[in-house]
Amino acid sequence: MSSVLVLHGPNLNLLGEREPEIYGRTTLAEIDRRLTSLAAELGVHVESYQSNHEGELIDRIQSARGRIGAVVINAAGYTHTSVALRDALAACGVPVVEVHLSNVHRRESFRQRSLIAGVATGQISGFGVDSYLLGLRAAAALASGGPAKH
Amino acid sequence: MSSVLVLHGPNLNLLGEREPEIYGRTTLAEIDRRLTSLAAELGVHVESYQSNHEGELIDRIQSARGRIGAVVINAAGYTHTSVALRDALAACGVPVVEVHLSNVHRRESFRQRSLIAGVATGQISGFGVDSYLLGLRAAAALASGGPAKH
Amino acid sequence: MSSVLVLHGPNLNLLGEREPEIYGRTTLAEIDRRLTSLAAELGVHVESYQSNHEGELIDRIQSARGRIGAVVINAAGYTHTSVALRDALAACGVPVVEVHLSNVHRRESFRQRSLIAGVATGQISGFGVDSYLLGLRAAAALASGGPAKH
Amino acid sequence: MSSVLVLHGPNLNLLGEREPEIYGRTTLAEIDRRLTSLAAELGVHVESYQSNHEGELIDRIQSARGRIGAVVINAAGYTHTSVALRDALAACGVPVVEVHLSNVHRRESFRQRSLIAGVATGQISGFGVDSYLLGLRAAAALASGGPAKH
Amino acid sequence: MSSVLVLHGPNLNLLGEREPEIYGRTTLAEIDRRLTSLAAELGVHVESYQSNHEGELIDRIQSARGRIGAVVINAAGYTHTSVALRDALAACGVPVVEVHLSNVHRRESFRQRSLIAGVATGQISGFGVDSYLLGLRAAAALASGGPAKH
Amino acid sequence: MSSVLVLHGPNLNLLGEREPEIYGRTTLAEIDRRLTSLAAELGVHVESYQSNHEGELIDRIQSARGRIGAVVINAAGYTHTSVALRDALAACGVPVVEVHLSNVHRRESFRQRSLIAGVATGQISGFGVDSYLLGLRAAAALASGGPAKH
Amino acid sequence: MSSVLVLHGPNLNLLGEREPEIYGRTTLAEIDRRLTSLAAELGVHVESYQSNHEGELIDRIQSARGRIGAVVINAAGYTHTSVALRDALAACGVPVVEVHLSNVHRRESFRQRSLIAGVATGQISGFGVDSYLLGLRAAAALASGGPAKH
Amino acid sequence: MSSVLVLHGPNLNLLGEREPEIYGRTTLAEIDRRLTSLAAELGVHVESYQSNHEGELIDRIQSARGRIGAVVINAAGYTHTSVALRDALAACGVPVVEVHLSNVHRRESFRQRSLIAGVATGQISGFGVDSYLLGLRAAAALASGGPAKH
Amino acid sequence: MSSVLVLHGPNLNLLGEREPEIYGRTTLAEIDRRLTSLAAELGVHVESYQSNHEGELIDRIQSARGRIGAVVINAAGYTHTSVALRDALAACGVPVVEVHLSNVHRRESFRQRSLIAGVATGQISGFGVDSYLLGLRAAAALASGGPAKH
Amino acid sequence: MSSVLVLHGPNLNLLGEREPEIYGRTTLAEIDRRLTSLAAELGVHVESYQSNHEGELIDRIQSARGRIGAVVINAAGYTHTSVALRDALAACGVPVVEVHLSNVHRRESFRQRSLIAGVATGQISGFGVDSYLLGLRAAAALASGGPAKH
Amino acid sequence: MSSVLVLHGPNLNLLGEREPEIYGRTTLAEIDRRLTSLAAELGVHVESYQSNHEGELIDRIQSARGRIGAVVINAAGYTHTSVALRDALAACGVPVVEVHLSNVHRRESFRQRSLIAGVATGQISGFGVDSYLLGLRAAAALASGGPAKH
Amino acid sequence: MSSVLVLHGPNLNLLGEREPEIYGRTTLAEIDRRLTSLAAELGVHVESYQSNHEGELIDRIQSARGRIGAVVINAAGYTHTSVALRDALAACGVPVVEVHLSNVHRRESFRQRSLIAGVATGQISGFGVDSYLLGLRAAAALASGGPAKH
Repeated sequence: MSSVLVLHGPNLNLLGEREPEIYGRTTLAEIDRRLTSLAAELGVHVESYQSNHEGELIDRIQSARGRIGAVVINAAGYTHTSVALRDALAACGVPVVEVHLSNVHRRESFRQRSLIAGVATGQISGFGVDSYLLGLRAAAALASGGPAKH
Repeated sequence: MSSVLVLHGPNLNLLGEREPEIYGRTTLAEIDRRLTSLAAELGVHVESYQSNHEGELIDRIQSARGRIGAVVINAAGYTHTSVALRDALAACGVPVVEVHLSNVHRRESFRQRSLIAGVATGQISGFGVDSYLLGLRAAAALASGGPAKH
Repeated sequence: MSSVLVLHGPNLNLLGEREPEIYGRTTLAEIDRRLTSLAAELGVHVESYQSNHEGELIDRIQSARGRIGAVVINAAGYTHTSVALRDALAACGVPVVEVHLSNVHRRESFRQRSLIAGVATGQISGFGVDSYLLGLRAAAALASGGPAKH
Repeated sequence: MSSVLVLHGPNLNLLGEREPEIYGRTTLAEIDRRLTSLAAELGVHVESYQSNHEGELIDRIQSARGRIGAVVINAAGYTHTSVALRDALAACGVPVVEVHLSNVHRRESFRQRSLIAGVATGQISGFGVDSYLLGLRAAAALASGGPAKH
Repeated sequence: MSSVLVLHGPNLNLLGEREPEIYGRTTLAEIDRRLTSLAAELGVHVESYQSNHEGELIDRIQSARGRIGAVVINAAGYTHTSVALRDALAACGVPVVEVHLSNVHRRESFRQRSLIAGVATGQISGFGVDSYLLGLRAAAALASGGPAKH
Repeated sequence: MSSVLVLHGPNLNLLGEREPEIYGRTTLAEIDRRLTSLAAELGVHVESYQSNHEGELIDRIQSARGRIGAVVINAAGYTHTSVALRDALAACGVPVVEVHLSNVHRRESFRQRSLIAGVATGQISGFGVDSYLLGLRAAAALASGGPAKH
Repeated sequence: MSSVLVLHGPNLNLLGEREPEIYGRTTLAEIDRRLTSLAAELGVHVESYQSNHEGELIDRIQSARGRIGAVVINAAGYTHTSVALRDALAACGVPVVEVHLSNVHRRESFRQRSLIAGVATGQISGFGVDSYLLGLRAAAALASGGPAKH
Repeated sequence: MSSVLVLHGPNLNLLGEREPEIYGRTTLAEIDRRLTSLAAELGVHVESYQSNHEGELIDRIQSARGRIGAVVINAAGYTHTSVALRDALAACGVPVVEVHLSNVHRRESFRQRSLIAGVATGQISGFGVDSYLLGLRAAAALASGGPAKH
Repeated sequence: MSSVLVLHGPNLNLLGEREPEIYGRTTLAEIDRRLTSLAAELGVHVESYQSNHEGELIDRIQSARGRIGAVVINAAGYTHTSVALRDALAACGVPVVEVHLSNVHRRESFRQRSLIAGVATGQISGFGVDSYLLGLRAAAALASGGPAKH
Repeated sequence: MSSVLVLHGPNLNLLGEREPEIYGRTTLAEIDRRLTSLAAELGVHVESYQSNHEGELIDRIQSARGRIGAVVINAAGYTHTSVALRDALAACGVPVVEVHLSNVHRRESFRQRSLIAGVATGQISGFGVDSYLLGLRAAAALASGGPAKH
Repeated sequence: MSSVLVLHGPNLNLLGEREPEIYGRTTLAEIDRRLTSLAAELGVHVESYQSNHEGELIDRIQSARGRIGAVVINAAGYTHTSVALRDALAACGVPVVEVHLSNVHRRESFRQRSLIAGVATGQISGFGVDSYLLGLRAAAALASGGPAKH
Repeated sequence: MSSVLVLHGPNLNLLGEREPEIYGRTTLAEIDRRLTSLAAELGVHVESYQSNHEGELIDRIQSARGRIGAVVINAAGYTHTSVALRDALAACGVPVVEVHLSNVHRRESFRQRSLIAGVATGQISGFGVDSYLLGLRAAAALASGGPAKH
């Protein structure tokens, strides 16, 4: 059974409280529950991790090397500023699925450059919590080397 | 039962033949079959249309106004150059899901500006045929005003 | 009696329905009626044409060559993207009056570059339907080689 | 009876003498006569003012606050450089019609940025003296809250 | 005997009439006659097509796939704006020769970016009708896999 | 009998040896032989010169003034950096044909700006040795004031 | 007792009336009263001047040379456009404190370049009337060569 | 009694030792003492925190949510690079006062873009330690919803 | 005897006092004396005017039209910001010589764009007071239509 | 005996495993062994530290102040994004040698801006492990104030 | 008696013949005669040198070190492209006067960047041959350390 | 025994005399002596060449082809402007080590673009004469296909 690492970047621990008009009212715990539930349906294992620290996210990616089949990452603010995170993902050697709750292509110009995109297989943005769930479907398919289950 | 319009832009009629190392070997007919099958599962109706003509795509969007609940669009080359298509989508008044077979964020710089993104709810790119199927899930949820089915 | 060709670009057939907070509630048919009425007052003939197809607009300009004295054009989305339309207008050899319903200079940056402007005598933007009527006055004067009637 | 303030920016007192191949041979006095005559026809009052001094133009706009219904302004060289004039117009609280004798969109690049445009209802450029007369029509309509008289 | 498709983009049907100081006085019919005559000399077949419609040019390229050995294209205004045309040429899989009547590198800045160049073997510009004839020589050689006949 | 000066810029003396996957295997001597042979056919005289020195190329252009009817130049690396060479060509007063072995429009961005283009009648790039031969045809026609021989 | 010159740029005489949602409801007279009162507390003398004329502001700065110990300036619209004002402040030879009612760093891009900043000791923006009062504290400290009184 | 969180970014623990010609000779402990003293005078509580770790600063902001009335932040090097810190401040939901010891608008160009500014009420820069003290006054006023005490 | 108008822009009345390390120790009165003395030698009349007001400089240029043969202008801060001054000089119709005390090409980037240059015959910068004297020589020659006296 | 601090930035702990075609097959431990061995030969002490955390690297630099004579730093991804790291190095007050395994000047454009370079004595890039060893030679010489040992 | 080196860059040997509408009809020999004559009047020695070779101009500057008191240079095409020439002038250690026949600030954008300006005392452009003569006056004054003779 | 070609670009013959505060006091002869001495130690042969002429440097590189194992080049001013030199190095087919005496990344912006870097294995800058010696170590290792000797 392949494993998918789901990474949540800085401030995502505040989901449900922080600017709900942009990010919605679902909490991170609820997102993780829904991911776990969908993972079961898709036949994959999911492990989830949140940190506000760029270095901890990098450490986590490194420690998962060799054990996971794909990464789903919402790098939040680090999406636009972290070459180090990008390099960690590239070094990981598994498919990366980049997700965003909001449609970053319609927001401030500094949110429109993704350093993650250059090392990701694909990107899903703008569907709120569904961005994660669709991303997990994509990741599960990539982890197993086949098409997504539909 | 809500209806989703799936639009395929220029040259997508060649799918399966054209540059398969970038776009894969699945034909457009096969994609439409898979969309129809998933639509049945999701409880929505799907109508699909391909054209190489910017004006015909606009006409088609206009004629669907009032009858459909969401649009899934892979505008291909027109993604980057058509303000007219963007305006037609905005005028349509329903949620728009932008999809791309390849990860446009990793390709030529002129493919990294999407005029569609500014009027879309979200964007899915880089998962080949799965971009369409994930996009249909997102669109079906948006058309019904609820979360995506998972 | 000189003739003025009035061209309406893509999505203008939806006027009155589409985003009325930006474009107002007057329909294209009503605009054409008001243009015809003002034309009679000004002693010119007006012919009006709308299309969502860049190529059809070009064909129409070409077929009017030699028969008309001026063009009033609201190229809508093609204003910002069509070198071909610009070349057709330049080839036409008569004065061109560029009109816009909204003040394009206050909108998205991609709407602030007009490829039409480089071949137009002048530009009128921001007055809603009045942009067309003021534009017809200007065009009628240009077509007759004299100042606008006031 | 509503009142329209017509403002002429720097060097426009030289009209008719200065570079007539660009700006034409009509003098400012003649333009004011034609504006007065059209104003009578449209049922509005017109007051006209020219200055080479940015500060005097601002003073004039401020002193007209509460007494006028619209402004027609050809800010000439200050169009492209005066944030202060822009702020004065915004503070005035009435519709602003920006006019230019020549088509500024075809001239030097520094003439293609208008700081006035951001606070104007609309812009008319390229029709010589007719830019003023068409602008007065637009302003009269805006001052009375109705469509332009045609 | 290999076949060369010669494509003429928008407004080229007006050749000989439109802005002769830039584009010369030879008509498109005359150009086609001279191409046919040179083709005979070079031992290739030539088929020629003009359209003002981006979509029709794309359709024509697609329908020629598998039957022709090279394309000579003067995409005119679409040279600078059509990603869709570029993609169609890339999908065609045969050598593409880009030609221009005028030296586009000396004209307006928006004419100095060619989207076609990225998928063309080479480019010939600035020699008027000779651009086509030299382009046919290059294309004939490429179609036959050997050097140009001289 | 008119004379055409063919100039080869820096490093072209290494042709056939240097990076053959980009520049091909034909030597400069062979190119000159083929140019001479084609010149005989076209009824013009050809004189050829190669230098790695910007100043020597300028001296050579100056010394040819009044004696030649056209220039064919592959300025190689100096294409993108030499205003001095451009000025020498402009001062020469005869038509200039710019040629490149590779399609410079598809290479590094610094190779996409040509300082020569601004003073050349036309440009031919991407056809390997054929770029020179096609260029000679164009130059011979320009030197004699008539169309190219075909 | 050291003296601080407080300069108010164009349109600030309208404070309290003009766009109160941006600039607040306090009038300039009230601001000057509060500055005078704080100055008394801080043991400095304050002189205040407002003008809509760039030249008058420069004259005022020049005439204060040698008599004042610091300048507090809200140059309003001239902040972004006046090199002359900047040069006058530099020539004055005393510390300059730049203040803004609104946070200019969050407004239109043309308001984000301050020509004054290059000759100012510091900048305070975004605190409404408090920007002036905090600025006076800073200026008083600078004028006396010591730290601000707190 | 409302509480103000004062945050010191990376390297500010070295104040008084590091580049004193730019940053002065006062230590961070001394700054905190002066802030505490002024806070007492203003009737607010101050809590102060320094870290070189972006993630720790974010954690600290998050843990203060709901307990503090305003933030004073000198984000130092993170001012220009941290979208994550900006997002944390925005999520905090209280007024933010951005302070800088030096006038960042006169330093290297990379120090002239503040990602913090977009979520701050105002900015104070260039007054050395006084930037903090003036910033605390502003923050105290914002925390209590009234004007600054003067 | 032809007449040369010498214009001194804002803050030049402070010459000799203001930043002498950049602008030298000679006063404006002394410069005018030296200009008058050289004018006598060159056989021209010189009239000199300084103002800190953009509008006054424009008024002065306008009132000199028809009476003077050339202008020498050091527009100081207005060099970089005044389209209105540029237009006044262009309207004047006589040769304009632009002078600067310092070498503006080596200073802040905003001093490297001259709006005056586009309407000036030539520019002299960097020679301190000698820039004026050399400029008068150039202007005197231009006013008389012959070469400079040497 | 002077001491050199060698800092390894994020992901360098993966050396030898991560993308060996770019970064080689030598591990970080092996690099540190070779550095220690060369240090002995050069008569300096070397201390080495790796972290994925920007803040930890800053802490380490700060704690080494006063004890070390030079820094050799391969900041990896933080090279391009960390102003905070740059400030820490500047505050350290000893010579800094910037090293890179690959030639960053030939890679993605975002890797071509180094924030470290502005505070480094010199930079060595592109020689794989040798970049470190050459860098240690340079650092040892700088630490001792003399030329490098060769 | 101090010595001034006058350097003429590429193509200036053609003066009088090349594009006389831009560069005038005076030959280089005539310019040198007039410079020699003015030099005698000013009490300096002049030596003049022209080359089309960047390297020869550099050699000439180097060989003049220690013997000359100032340089007058019209670097022509090398003005905009030669860092090497700039470095040679900087190494020379004497004042440099940059001259241009035409007003480079009104020509092509690539002629508006001068690499020479950064190492020159001043610049004179636009006065044809008089640019040289005025430049010699400036250089003679600089060479003798006093003001220009007038 | 492998051979290393050391190339010194323009003005480096002045080393020791020219701007010693930037470039140090060691002469080129002394540098060559130290290179020869280190070469003996490393077991390689060194040949050294300096020229101010871009063409001569290219000639020298070409004549060394096939005979040398690596190049060390300090192209000085040509680093930033010579595509021709870059092409010559690429054609040479051996490893290239780019060296600079000063840290070019901290100097004028035009010195921060290296055209050489794109064809070099690595770059060493900022260590004065040691840049050459470290560069020779790197080159010797590359020439022999092994790691640098340490």
